[in-house]
Amino acid sequence: MGHDFAYPPVDFETHPDRYKHWRLSIDGDIATLEMAVDEQAPLWPGQYELKLNSYDLGVDIELADIVQRLRFEHPEVRVVVLTGGLDAKIFCAGANIRMLGMAPHAFKVNFCKFTNETRASIEDATRHSGQVWVAALNGTASGGGYELALACEEIWLIDDGNAAVSLPEVPLLGVLPGTGGLTRLTDKRQVRRDIADVFCTKAEGFRARDAKRYGFVDHTWPRSRWEEGCAARARELAAAARAAHPERTGPGVALPPLSRTDHDDGWSYPHVDVRFHHDLDDRAVTITIRGPTDDPRRDATTWSLQAFRELDDALLRLRVNHLGVGLVLLRTEGDPDAVLAHEAQVLQGAETDWFWREVQLFQARTLRRVDNTAKTFFALIEPGNCFVGTLFELCLAADRSYMFLDDDLANSIRLTDANQGVFPMASGISRIEARYPGDPDAVEAVIEVDGPIDAEQAEELGLVTAALDDIDWEDEVRIAIEERVSLSPDALTGMEQNLRFGGAETCETKIYGRLSAWQNWIFQRPNAVGERGALTMFGHPERPVFDFNRT
Amino acid sequence: MGHDFAYPPVDFETHPDRYKHWRLSIDGDIATLEMAVDEQAPLWPGQYELKLNSYDLGVDIELADIVQRLRFEHPEVRVVVLTGGLDAKIFCAGANIRMLGMAPHAFKVNFCKFTNETRASIEDATRHSGQVWVAALNGTASGGGYELALACEEIWLIDDGNAAVSLPEVPLLGVLPGTGGLTRLTDKRQVRRDIADVFCTKAEGFRARDAKRYGFVDHTWPRSRWEEGCAARARELAAAARAAHPERTGPGVALPPLSRTDHDDGWSYPHVDVRFHHDLDDRAVTITIRGPTDDPRRDATTWSLQAFRELDDALLRLRVNHLGVGLVLLRTEGDPDAVLAHEAQVLQGAETDWFWREVQLFQARTLRRVDNTAKTFFALIEPGNCFVGTLFELCLAADRSYMFLDDDLANSIRLTDANQGVFPMASGISRIEARYPGDPDAVEAVIEVDGPIDAEQAEELGLVTAALDDIDWEDEVRIAIEERVSLSPDALTGMEQNLRFGGAETCETKIYGRLSAWQNWIFQRPNAVGERGALTMFGHPERPVFDFNRT
Repeated sequence: MGHDFAYPPVDFETHPDRYKHWRLSIDGDIATLEMAVDEQAPLWPGQYELKLNSYDLGVDIELADIVQRLRFEHPEVRVVVLTGGLDAKIFCAGANIRMLGMAPHAFKVNFCKFTNETRASIEDATRHSGQVWVAALNGTASGGGYELALACEEIWLIDDGNAAVSLPEVPLLGVLPGTGGLTRLTDKRQVRRDIADVFCTKAEGFRARDAKRYGFVDHTWPRSRWEEGCAARARELAAAARAAHPERTGPGVALPPLSRTDHDDGWSYPHVDVRFHHDLDDRAVTITIRGPTDDPRRDATTWSLQAFRELDDALLRLRVNHLGVGLVLLRTEGDPDAVLAHEAQVLQGAETDWFWREVQLFQARTLRRVDNTAKTFFALIEPGNCFVGTLFELCLAADRSYMFLDDDLANSIRLTDANQGVFPMASGISRIEARYPGDPDAVEAVIEVDGPIDAEQAEELGLVTAALDDIDWEDEVRIAIEERVSLSPDALTGMEQNLRFGGAETCETKIYGRLSAWQNWIFQRPNAVGERGALTMFGHPERPVFDFNRT
Repeated sequence: MGHDFAYPPVDFETHPDRYKHWRLSIDGDIATLEMAVDEQAPLWPGQYELKLNSYDLGVDIELADIVQRLRFEHPEVRVVVLTGGLDAKIFCAGANIRMLGMAPHAFKVNFCKFTNETRASIEDATRHSGQVWVAALNGTASGGGYELALACEEIWLIDDGNAAVSLPEVPLLGVLPGTGGLTRLTDKRQVRRDIADVFCTKAEGFRARDAKRYGFVDHTWPRSRWEEGCAARARELAAAARAAHPERTGPGVALPPLSRTDHDDGWSYPHVDVRFHHDLDDRAVTITIRGPTDDPRRDATTWSLQAFRELDDALLRLRVNHLGVGLVLLRTEGDPDAVLAHEAQVLQGAETDWFWREVQLFQARTLRRVDNTAKTFFALIEPGNCFVGTLFELCLAADRSYMFLDDDLANSIRLTDANQGVFPMASGISRIEARYPGDPDAVEAVIEVDGPIDAEQAEELGLVTAALDDIDWEDEVRIAIEERVSLSPDALTGMEQNLRFGGAETCETKIYGRLSAWQNWIFQRPNAVGERGALTMFGHPERPVFDFNRT
């Protein structure tokens, strides 16, 4: 099963000049994105071929980049029509099975998480940026291909007697559709669950008539009217989006490459530093975010965007390239007032200017990336910190926070408007609301505090886990860190996922908090990955052999 | 690891005369239940000892029986004080680790599910029957011991400088607290998640002062005032429960043993028949429920209670003793009008008479047991069926339903008041609401139909998955069955759990739909059950050895 395949480090940055798998064209306010995966350009060269528009992490990194750049660089685009770019009668065959078969367990799980986040970013662009994604399925969309369509606002399927939508993972591979298909069928498209059951166990899926009848797609047209039908509907949607978001007009703002410097202890960006703890066998890492040192400016180098892009990149690299890291210590350094000045520009600008709104939405997604990372986060709040407003969300996202209690109570944190719903969790509620479940009075008490909050008061209000004076700080923090990195990483991942997503539920929390757990389990079972498991045997002439005991 | 330990079949019926592990005494309207587990009486004789009031499935079967009998046989009881009956300074040490270490994976999962259902039944008795369960922790409650307390309405902890509450699973065993502890801490007791994080990684837990401060317990008293404090608080709660449920007065109704006959093809009760499909390698079973043939009567032999007790027993035996069964075909036979007459007695009686109310609540729990069973359910609706009202809930609980379409449209189903919220799912909504997510008009349309619904109309309304005429019935049902039993049982379990619990979430759905998935996964990981895993190494002098890669 190649569980030990040592995959090369993954780079999450890319640029349109380097895309291998997608063709983007823009005509007025409608963009057309053709998926045309290069078979011969898999993430791991020579290991597998990306046949039938199947995808791997490399294909999805490009897609995530496209979603992102469309929002910043092409604000005039109102509708993104996602369609198949192969000659074959296939839109997309889903995740590449050979890749899944050879990938280590942890890679499979991280791959699913990243692709889920990319799908969520498509929905985020549709909902918040007035860039409405639609899937124009000019051929069969199976598995992850149909799940990609499910992330779109509308799904159109060509009615040619051949093209179908399907989720064949259960019958063909013995695993679940891992990119939110089950959840979006029932909770987003509101398909009846017995119909969903039939669909998810029927390898060939539904063609246009049944797919339309049961709500698996929104529109179908025969081949003769396909181009015309798609174009007309796209124009309708574009007109509606234009009316809803008149503020989104060009020119766009280009996203320059990040500047990253590797060094012996980790790597650094201009605003973010990642440092491994060699004394803890590299099982812990400190991420330090430096506050702004200049004024806000309306381009991609402004601190609010660049620092969060750096943090986002650091999180992704830690997840995929540094599996052994179980604990992330979050620190900040800098002038709290400078953070507040930049934050004020983002929040006020967001009311009228699409660019600042996009910056705010990007910060929100990066914070959700923290929530979804299968590593422990401890925030360390020390003198010189700038955990205020937007950056204090990192403390609220952390599993624990330790605050240094100095004699003169100068060490402080501060809440702002940024902590009152501007950066919702995947559950839809703010991190402050999630912190005090069912206790609106506590939320109110915290929000009412104006100005800096010292360590004593922060502990009293429940804003930090513990305030520790100089007698206790070093020992207690050291013990907490050493204990954390000694515990079972599996149990911690399970525990953190359960504790992080309290309260109400949404599609996103169900996907990350529930679906992924069932998939993690199934991914380990011999019925999927054993010598005769369905995932192992896929493409072989022999049938898989199951242990039929149910649990 | 003994993954192949072939455990003997489990019998889920018991009786107070045979209790080995619990002492129940009733004084007026207050019952005291002492947990006093017999070390030498484990479920698997000679395999392990039940030290320190640790429990196994046998202990929990007795507890479930007690919860049940108190509701039916002792309606005068208002408060149940659950306390420790050992001399040692321990209330309960949780699930027995030796048993968990040797139990096959499927048994562990089923064990957790049953104990979760028992905890949910304690909350159900508190909420709906005015029998308020409280935990009087006269010694340390760790792991499953504290989770048992969390199922109670209040938790009292003796303040003797020694007794503590704790969830040491993560630090000591490398697994999660599997009986809802994480979920009830955050969502029921609304403990802050960073405090829960500290607690769940601190093996020794919190003693009275910190436990009270952070909301892990409700009341504490020193040893000198313990008895008095508990007694006074119990009297207060009893007075409140008496005022809230004045209708609950004696005498109780005794629950006689079930009558079960084994035969070559399965087993039978008076109203329920379980028959294995030998031609499908016993991977499918048909459960046939026979409708009533006599009038309702106010005792435990009345059809509404007895048939559901038989169904409940059949489900439990299938889950634990027949792991290889992946598909349950649900059938009914009998006079629909007789079912309706019995149902009318239950629903009308429940408004004023605690007995009929208990019958209705028991039916609701049995239906939720179907929702929680890791086997596929197909309802087969054939001429002669009595899938009306209460019994139609079984069709709604099923993953699919097939209805025979006869020429004269005589084959029918029928909805009643029983389908409109009387039998809520764990999510709190009715199965009809769950069937049409986000579509109240569809719910309305279905409810408005008065009288029998034939197969054509049932399909059109979306009440059944498919209506099949005599040309198609045999082949299509056979193919559906054969396909189902050929698919990966793990993938099906994961898929069904995702599809069954759409819409809103509660503690219960989070426990069955999410927590159990993370636990299933962790239960399979080498870090828990491998040669040097934490669960394997527990009690050995050597430390567990972890693979620290995070997923």
